Amino acid sequence: MLYDRLDREKVFRDPLYGYVKVYYKLIDELIDAKEFQRLRRVRQLAGLSMTFHTAEHSRFGHSLGAYEMARRVIENAEGIKDVLSEYEQIVFLCAALLHDTGHGPYSHAFEAVMKYESHEEMTVRVILEDTEIHSILDRYDKNLASDVANVIAHKGKFTIIEQLTSSQLDVDRMDYLQRDSYFTGALYGTIDSDRIIRSMKIVNDEVTYRASGAPAIESYLMARYHMYNQIYYHPVARSYELLLQSIFLRIKDLNDKGIHIDGYVSDFIDAITTHNLKSYLFLDDAYVNGFIKQLTRSSDPILNDLCNRLLNRKLYQVIDLKLEADQKKIERIRSKYASDPILLRYYFEESKLSQIAYRHTDDLDKVDTIKILLPSGKTISLEKYSPIVGGLIEDAKNTFSRIYFGKGE
Amino acid sequence: MLYDRLDREKVFRDPLYGYVKVYYKLIDELIDAKEFQRLRRVRQLAGLSMTFHTAEHSRFGHSLGAYEMARRVIENAEGIKDVLSEYEQIVFLCAALLHDTGHGPYSHAFEAVMKYESHEEMTVRVILEDTEIHSILDRYDKNLASDVANVIAHKGKFTIIEQLTSSQLDVDRMDYLQRDSYFTGALYGTIDSDRIIRSMKIVNDEVTYRASGAPAIESYLMARYHMYNQIYYHPVARSYELLLQSIFLRIKDLNDKGIHIDGYVSDFIDAITTHNLKSYLFLDDAYVNGFIKQLTRSSDPILNDLCNRLLNRKLYQVIDLKLEADQKKIERIRSKYASDPILLRYYFEESKLSQIAYRHTDDLDKVDTIKILLPSGKTISLEKYSPIVGGLIEDAKNTFSRIYFGKGE
Amino acid sequence: MLYDRLDREKVFRDPLYGYVKVYYKLIDELIDAKEFQRLRRVRQLAGLSMTFHTAEHSRFGHSLGAYEMARRVIENAEGIKDVLSEYEQIVFLCAALLHDTGHGPYSHAFEAVMKYESHEEMTVRVILEDTEIHSILDRYDKNLASDVANVIAHKGKFTIIEQLTSSQLDVDRMDYLQRDSYFTGALYGTIDSDRIIRSMKIVNDEVTYRASGAPAIESYLMARYHMYNQIYYHPVARSYELLLQSIFLRIKDLNDKGIHIDGYVSDFIDAITTHNLKSYLFLDDAYVNGFIKQLTRSSDPILNDLCNRLLNRKLYQVIDLKLEADQKKIERIRSKYASDPILLRYYFEESKLSQIAYRHTDDLDKVDTIKILLPSGKTISLEKYSPIVGGLIEDAKNTFSRIYFGKGE
Amino acid sequence: MLYDRLDREKVFRDPLYGYVKVYYKLIDELIDAKEFQRLRRVRQLAGLSMTFHTAEHSRFGHSLGAYEMARRVIENAEGIKDVLSEYEQIVFLCAALLHDTGHGPYSHAFEAVMKYESHEEMTVRVILEDTEIHSILDRYDKNLASDVANVIAHKGKFTIIEQLTSSQLDVDRMDYLQRDSYFTGALYGTIDSDRIIRSMKIVNDEVTYRASGAPAIESYLMARYHMYNQIYYHPVARSYELLLQSIFLRIKDLNDKGIHIDGYVSDFIDAITTHNLKSYLFLDDAYVNGFIKQLTRSSDPILNDLCNRLLNRKLYQVIDLKLEADQKKIERIRSKYASDPILLRYYFEESKLSQIAYRHTDDLDKVDTIKILLPSGKTISLEKYSPIVGGLIEDAKNTFSRIYFGKGE
Repeated sequence: MLYDRLDREKVFRDPLYGYVKVYYKLIDELIDAKEFQRLRRVRQLAGLSMTFHTAEHSRFGHSLGAYEMARRVIENAEGIKDVLSEYEQIVFLCAALLHDTGHGPYSHAFEAVMKYESHEEMTVRVILEDTEIHSILDRYDKNLASDVANVIAHKGKFTIIEQLTSSQLDVDRMDYLQRDSYFTGALYGTIDSDRIIRSMKIVNDEVTYRASGAPAIESYLMARYHMYNQIYYHPVARSYELLLQSIFLRIKDLNDKGIHIDGYVSDFIDAITTHNLKSYLFLDDAYVNGFIKQLTRSSDPILNDLCNRLLNRKLYQVIDLKLEADQKKIERIRSKYASDPILLRYYFEESKLSQIAYRHTDDLDKVDTIKILLPSGKTISLEKYSPIVGGLIEDAKNTFSRIYFGKGE
Repeated sequence: MLYDRLDREKVFRDPLYGYVKVYYKLIDELIDAKEFQRLRRVRQLAGLSMTFHTAEHSRFGHSLGAYEMARRVIENAEGIKDVLSEYEQIVFLCAALLHDTGHGPYSHAFEAVMKYESHEEMTVRVILEDTEIHSILDRYDKNLASDVANVIAHKGKFTIIEQLTSSQLDVDRMDYLQRDSYFTGALYGTIDSDRIIRSMKIVNDEVTYRASGAPAIESYLMARYHMYNQIYYHPVARSYELLLQSIFLRIKDLNDKGIHIDGYVSDFIDAITTHNLKSYLFLDDAYVNGFIKQLTRSSDPILNDLCNRLLNRKLYQVIDLKLEADQKKIERIRSKYASDPILLRYYFEESKLSQIAYRHTDDLDKVDTIKILLPSGKTISLEKYSPIVGGLIEDAKNTFSRIYFGKGE
Repeated sequence: MLYDRLDREKVFRDPLYGYVKVYYKLIDELIDAKEFQRLRRVRQLAGLSMTFHTAEHSRFGHSLGAYEMARRVIENAEGIKDVLSEYEQIVFLCAALLHDTGHGPYSHAFEAVMKYESHEEMTVRVILEDTEIHSILDRYDKNLASDVANVIAHKGKFTIIEQLTSSQLDVDRMDYLQRDSYFTGALYGTIDSDRIIRSMKIVNDEVTYRASGAPAIESYLMARYHMYNQIYYHPVARSYELLLQSIFLRIKDLNDKGIHIDGYVSDFIDAITTHNLKSYLFLDDAYVNGFIKQLTRSSDPILNDLCNRLLNRKLYQVIDLKLEADQKKIERIRSKYASDPILLRYYFEESKLSQIAYRHTDDLDKVDTIKILLPSGKTISLEKYSPIVGGLIEDAKNTFSRIYFGKGE
Repeated sequence: MLYDRLDREKVFRDPLYGYVKVYYKLIDELIDAKEFQRLRRVRQLAGLSMTFHTAEHSRFGHSLGAYEMARRVIENAEGIKDVLSEYEQIVFLCAALLHDTGHGPYSHAFEAVMKYESHEEMTVRVILEDTEIHSILDRYDKNLASDVANVIAHKGKFTIIEQLTSSQLDVDRMDYLQRDSYFTGALYGTIDSDRIIRSMKIVNDEVTYRASGAPAIESYLMARYHMYNQIYYHPVARSYELLLQSIFLRIKDLNDKGIHIDGYVSDFIDAITTHNLKSYLFLDDAYVNGFIKQLTRSSDPILNDLCNRLLNRKLYQVIDLKLEADQKKIERIRSKYASDPILLRYYFEESKLSQIAYRHTDDLDKVDTIKILLPSGKTISLEKYSPIVGGLIEDAKNTFSRIYFGKGE
């Protein structure tokens, strides 16, 4: 039953790939599961649409896209069917499809108050606990849920699948770089995922890329560089996210102190305190947008101020430390905010480069694992092969260093 | 003050046009008005994203796009600054920007229960009644609100602006054909609005197009043909819309009979009964999605069934009368549904071609008003000039003839 | 041996298709044959580069492109491998690759003086007579040359291959519409050959297209319409071609009268008088350009004038009979040129629409042979299926009616 | 008269820019000059079309393209009209248009036997000596020819124009990178020249680029990197060029020794020995192709062999020294060829990286002159501003190190 196919292949029209193709019954059912359909109501780029107004696409499309990338890897990467059994291929497809089901609304801000659980951990729970997704997986094969969860959690049981699902060059990134570029209208850094995939070859149980695919990978790295510089790290977008994060934090702080919050936030509180999965999965963008609107009338002056700022887009100011010449000004701001706990907690952020880089890119220093297969059969690292990658890595380290502050100098 | 400009031009990044450019202070303020910002929460293609999953773009982007098209017409159409004063140019820009502010969520379904007011009429009210938009317009110039409303309502005071805002070839259509194609991923029928605009020339107070622009206009008409065939009239999309319409209708019917509805629908009821503008503008996609979710537990069996169908996507069946050979089957269905008032009201639709064509395209028979300016200075109609347009018009008449039915044959 | 494959697939980078792929040894040898390499020196669009300066691409690229289209048909059209044996597939690939080897330089002008042999007939001779191409075909299989020639000559032995090679929708047209559009920079009418090919299905030994491919075919027909209107029938391009034709004609006339021509034209004379294949294949663009340069100093005043006009681009005037209002002027020109045999023969052309349409499109009235396969399994003609095709056909009939004249009114 | 404009703007359709626009009468006349028309017969990428079969575009298109880039710089770069008078603008347009008129056929191979004159020097002669181009320039303004020649020769009289015409980022490179990519079908490294140009601002008589244009410039540098790696330095292309160079060299050597050459090479000999301009300008691709064909029957065994190799594409073998592990093999080849003067002169090349880099890119170490204008008004070098440029520069230094050899190991 696990390998049952639909009578007729099902397709989803997609502007990036033409079609997303589904032929396993299992995949079809997973897409219809309510936890997966919920992704239609969670925007991929959270508040970034306040800066890039067309970035209104949901995680639903991205999840289908990551699945489609995985499907194409299975179809086109040389030798992959020799190392992955059909069962493992299905594990791969499921992992790609479901990898973001644990995302909350406005995810990065959300994680800041969830502390001890990341969205990956929530995804693992969606797969293992009492959900429609879990029961579907379970019905098809008793091992499937735990195997898919293993991949998401990087347990090392399926190393090739883990590498293809989450590394420096994986089906997740290949989709989101293309998709976010398409929907924001970012001009630079389109990538050619088909060519990357066609250049893949599994050699000695390792994913390698033929030298002919190297330019496509270089372009992918450039695309990534551009997307981070121009879109993901856009100062206004980060400023907006920071405001959201402060709202979440204030709600949490008030609740921790036992202060009643005059808005419809019970599921949110429940989710961040008990980490109850049902509550968590009840949350979506509409839910958060809803309580923020209510809290513009909150009796807590800080919450009231933060929510009004968000709706009226009175964002924090930002200074790029690299470009700002006036060192005294910077010191003045730092000491002003350091001296007041409220300002410091809700109205200030100094993002040191390495922090930001870490949060978004995870493991830039493992980029060397991209292996180029030479015509001779020898393998060398992309860094050795490609003269420009060294520069990209070296320089990507010190990208941004900024101060955000919400209450003047 | 009306002509005041921003100190620095403001731009919105747009995947279709590169940038949407704003330099009048007035326009900047209108975009920030809450009735305009509400368009961020109303999807351009309503439920079509259930069929084309990436069609999640909002009317906000389309409205900016129509404004940008208008701005480019003013910049590039030869002779336009001779016939439109700066005041009239501003009327044009405002009309283009605001033309969709009267749209409700899931607009086509909505209009079916609003009966005596169309979204154009609601737009006129947004401009003339007590709104932020109105007070902004009024503050800049006492005549502005009524002049912009005049254009929207086709009162004939500004004929050139009306033609450019709403005709067979206007800034509204030029934007939405491009935008909807981009976000659905429709393959055919991209249009070259820049070339169309650059070929415009105002001659004797009439909008004409130089012959060199004719191929671009032919492509625009082809694009329209393809978008209607493949996207807007997609049977599943229409089936989804029909279900929404039946839900709205059932709520209305229950309310008319004084039956209490067990969901959060008061603003909706208020909007469709009293046509109160505040209530109407409170509605957005999230509001509607919210009450539909609640009503899946409604005690009214019909409402309960309809809402559950929508969430579980158990759509109505559809038969294309042109392609179906079995006439008896068709008759059998027709008489089954005709014999039961409930089935007929909530579970059945026979869309005669002309109706659908009318509803979406309005005035196909006025296509002859597109005037081609020959090198000789003479003007002829596009139909005469372009050998293929005749075919397009003739054949566009009888596109679709379908039966939708929700309770089996 | 016929089915021998290269040790490693060979690819030609192509801007339109990514790659042209060759795996049969036979095809590789044919590409290297000198008669095929000669196509590098014959421009696809002859003198059109005088009007569209980037249209400098050769018939070599087009021939590889037609081959690649054929290859993709074999790979992707459903059911084709059931009706074509591997031998027949090779016949198809050869026919697509070689179909233009009989083209002379500036082919249309050339055919005007070759009278009783078209370029298709010359292609048949290249395949059957003593050439490198012939000996390669012969070496691989004794029947191959005559079978390929049969396809080119439409002898009816391989009807499916003939249809795919030369009909209203064939690998030749699919390539040249895309290629000529790409290299001229024509804006409209890009076509999606991959989608057309993927929609092909062989049913009952006939080529049909699934309904899902119909929009791609409609776009293909639009592309064709635009390319003829804007590029191939460009009045200046035709005027240039006409001048070339007059030069060829004058050389022929002088030679017929036994008058010595003071330029290096012996191979040309030999080719058009004896139709000797070696002489014919010696001709290429450089050869013709060479003698025209020499003949700008010819002692024959007509030849001298014609060649100088060509180099100095003093082209004939042109009047579009549809757009010209002054009927008397038209009559005046007609009678002036009719009254002088020299003017009439070398300096005048009245192209009646049907003639031109015939020469370039061949068989517009067979367009009905494009068959659409409905989901039900029934087949209907594209004309019946697609509402706009009727218009295209009807109107394409009376496209252009022009007078060209070289010596004033 | 110098500033006279055409009654109606003239346009050349171009796939890259839409249109190339001409409005000065002077420019129109220069395009019609026979030395400029000759560029239609000299391919932009010489023998590269043997490797990339669609790279058949001529220097004519590139020259128009460079002119169009210059025209757009004048239209769009902020402040340029304040620093360049209309006279200087015309000097700029002429320099951009004419900068390649001195190119011989198969230019790089040609320069190898022209030794003491580069194609830039020949361009200066075309502008200053007795040519149609010179007499047109002279007729419009007595200083024009020498001023345009000054720019080409980098005499320092018009520094801004020189920088815009020939530097690390100039109208010449902006056109050819785009054009060569388009016509070869290279996949990576498309550039956005419009955005680069729109970001230009002339500050204190220097060309700077606003920070918003930096990503476009980074992409331009990536494009350049890719074009050199994948196209211009393609080993087969270089191998082909090397063969041509050996043919030219052999002809020169034979002539130096007074040995008669049995082919039509007198103009060629004249050009490379006397550097006579008329002879030089008589040469074009057809001329060279012609004598090579003849010399396949040469009685000189070396010339005979080289020409036959070229026509039959029996190119030299190539070893990439970086990738080749077998050092002994390399030494064996080096010593074999070093020991035989004939082999060494005609059948061997060891290209050290720096040499090649120099020949094609000229002045990579001046890349720091690209100046980024910060919002603050301060200017910093692109290297400082853009983290990845350092990597590009550093690594571009040691690109290729190859041995080509024609007579086995």
